[in-house]
Amino acid sequence: MESEEAIIAQLGELFRSSFPGKVEVGIGDDAAVISGIDNKLVATVDMAVEGVHFRRDWSTPFQIGAKLTTASLADVLAMGAEPKYLLVAAAIPELNNLQLVTELAKGIRSIADEFNVMVIGGDLSKSEKMSLSITALGELSAIPIKRSGAKVGDLVYLSALPGLSAAGIAILERSLDRPRYVVEAHLNPKLKTPRMLTKVATAMCDISDGLTVDAGHIATESKVSINFKSEKFTSAADFKDLQELATELGEDVFDWILNGGEDHFFIATVDPSQADKELGIEVGEVIAGEAEILLDGKVIEKNGYQHF
Amino acid sequence: MESEEAIIAQLGELFRSSFPGKVEVGIGDDAAVISGIDNKLVATVDMAVEGVHFRRDWSTPFQIGAKLTTASLADVLAMGAEPKYLLVAAAIPELNNLQLVTELAKGIRSIADEFNVMVIGGDLSKSEKMSLSITALGELSAIPIKRSGAKVGDLVYLSALPGLSAAGIAILERSLDRPRYVVEAHLNPKLKTPRMLTKVATAMCDISDGLTVDAGHIATESKVSINFKSEKFTSAADFKDLQELATELGEDVFDWILNGGEDHFFIATVDPSQADKELGIEVGEVIAGEAEILLDGKVIEKNGYQHF
Repeated sequence: MESEEAIIAQLGELFRSSFPGKVEVGIGDDAAVISGIDNKLVATVDMAVEGVHFRRDWSTPFQIGAKLTTASLADVLAMGAEPKYLLVAAAIPELNNLQLVTELAKGIRSIADEFNVMVIGGDLSKSEKMSLSITALGELSAIPIKRSGAKVGDLVYLSALPGLSAAGIAILERSLDRPRYVVEAHLNPKLKTPRMLTKVATAMCDISDGLTVDAGHIATESKVSINFKSEKFTSAADFKDLQELATELGEDVFDWILNGGEDHFFIATVDPSQADKELGIEVGEVIAGEAEILLDGKVIEKNGYQHF
Repeated sequence: MESEEAIIAQLGELFRSSFPGKVEVGIGDDAAVISGIDNKLVATVDMAVEGVHFRRDWSTPFQIGAKLTTASLADVLAMGAEPKYLLVAAAIPELNNLQLVTELAKGIRSIADEFNVMVIGGDLSKSEKMSLSITALGELSAIPIKRSGAKVGDLVYLSALPGLSAAGIAILERSLDRPRYVVEAHLNPKLKTPRMLTKVATAMCDISDGLTVDAGHIATESKVSINFKSEKFTSAADFKDLQELATELGEDVFDWILNGGEDHFFIATVDPSQADKELGIEVGEVIAGEAEILLDGKVIEKNGYQHF
């Protein structure tokens, strides 16, 4: 058990080593000061609440910190921007538990380091249930890739096949721990910068709320509809394994894929002239319509990720 | 009862009307995009949790939103910077209660408007208890006023006499509702930009954690001690009323002043050559020492604001 002041000092140390030259004031003052933003400033906040977004019997503090950092950075990447700085607010029951706070911080740092991102500030408070709010700031030198840029005739790409995190939840709910790759997808999601998509996307969005919901965001903002083709999913490399697992558990593989959520992958629309297998999995096309999501031409519901 | 999507759209509308030209992408995409930051970027985050930082039987959603916005902006002002943008993450039990969410948003907006600050993004999630995390971004054209700049011999100023919020808590705890000015100080704290202090302060900090704790931050970072003079407090304009109230309630007025917290006022150190009554209340001086806080030459404990 340590005093709050001692813990904040410790966190300052843990995050301080990563300060670059541009951080004029970091952790330990009323606010952080960055000596300059070269380009456009990109900013987003994500919150995760115990029992709603994560379960402490499933996830360690390290994993909780890493996962929300991943979610927050994905939002910056989805604009085509480069993440740079993080601010972390944490409410924790065991506020004086230095080990827990340190593990949480190390989880955040593990992802931040991977993306060359610095933690520049935060707030720590007591609460009955753990909750975490991460603000990510980034820089953007180009035009932002908005949700509103999709055009009729564009192809729809996913950076990877979703559904893995939902499959992981299905495994964990049954108190199983295999296959590991889906459990890992839920507990330790891997984030990859969608570099190729960023260069050509007319619209882009991360799909952490669930594919139909996030495709729906693009459809709504772009005033188009999106038609997914089931054969495109079934011929994706990871589909067969996922389908076998769903069958074994008595679940619907397309429910995982379309509504699963919590996969930190990206959906993007791309002009057909830019079609390229390297962009990811082509799963459908943008059609004229009233912000509907279709599968093989039939309108489907936009069912988002249902939190616990 | 409204859908989450309808509520977010409503919030977008509520905050959208305040978008200035520099907000290239606002609420409703993965992240906000600001087309340029002219000067240094200042960033801070504050979190408030139901039952720890606020009580819903005492504060309305409007007041909760307004108060945390005040706290967050105070941190930007304490660096000598100008607040510009806010990101709000809220976790709410009654997520589908449009009226509650709207009241919270209006509370945030009420303070944001006063300081010409825009809400550019947010996150909304479900939780058992309400919690709120507000990130404030600001711009700074000058040198940041850090906690580390106090020099031995500097005078110590407060922008106003603290203790009012603690007095308000004492009243509310007794299920009383008068005197109103202290209840108001707790529920609807007023924030004033410390313009004069900003021009001359060698160190500055807001005193929302309690005067001794925040003075302690300056003392620690500046490697000095601070000696408060009780006669300076007792001769302050509002002291007599506060003392009478404390006596009536059987409380210690100096405990309110020194440890009360939640007053969004500022402490600053100032070179004696800049002494000016217009700066606020002169309450002591910076002396050589090991980060101690003294009252009339005797070391006192740094007891912060004890949340409920």
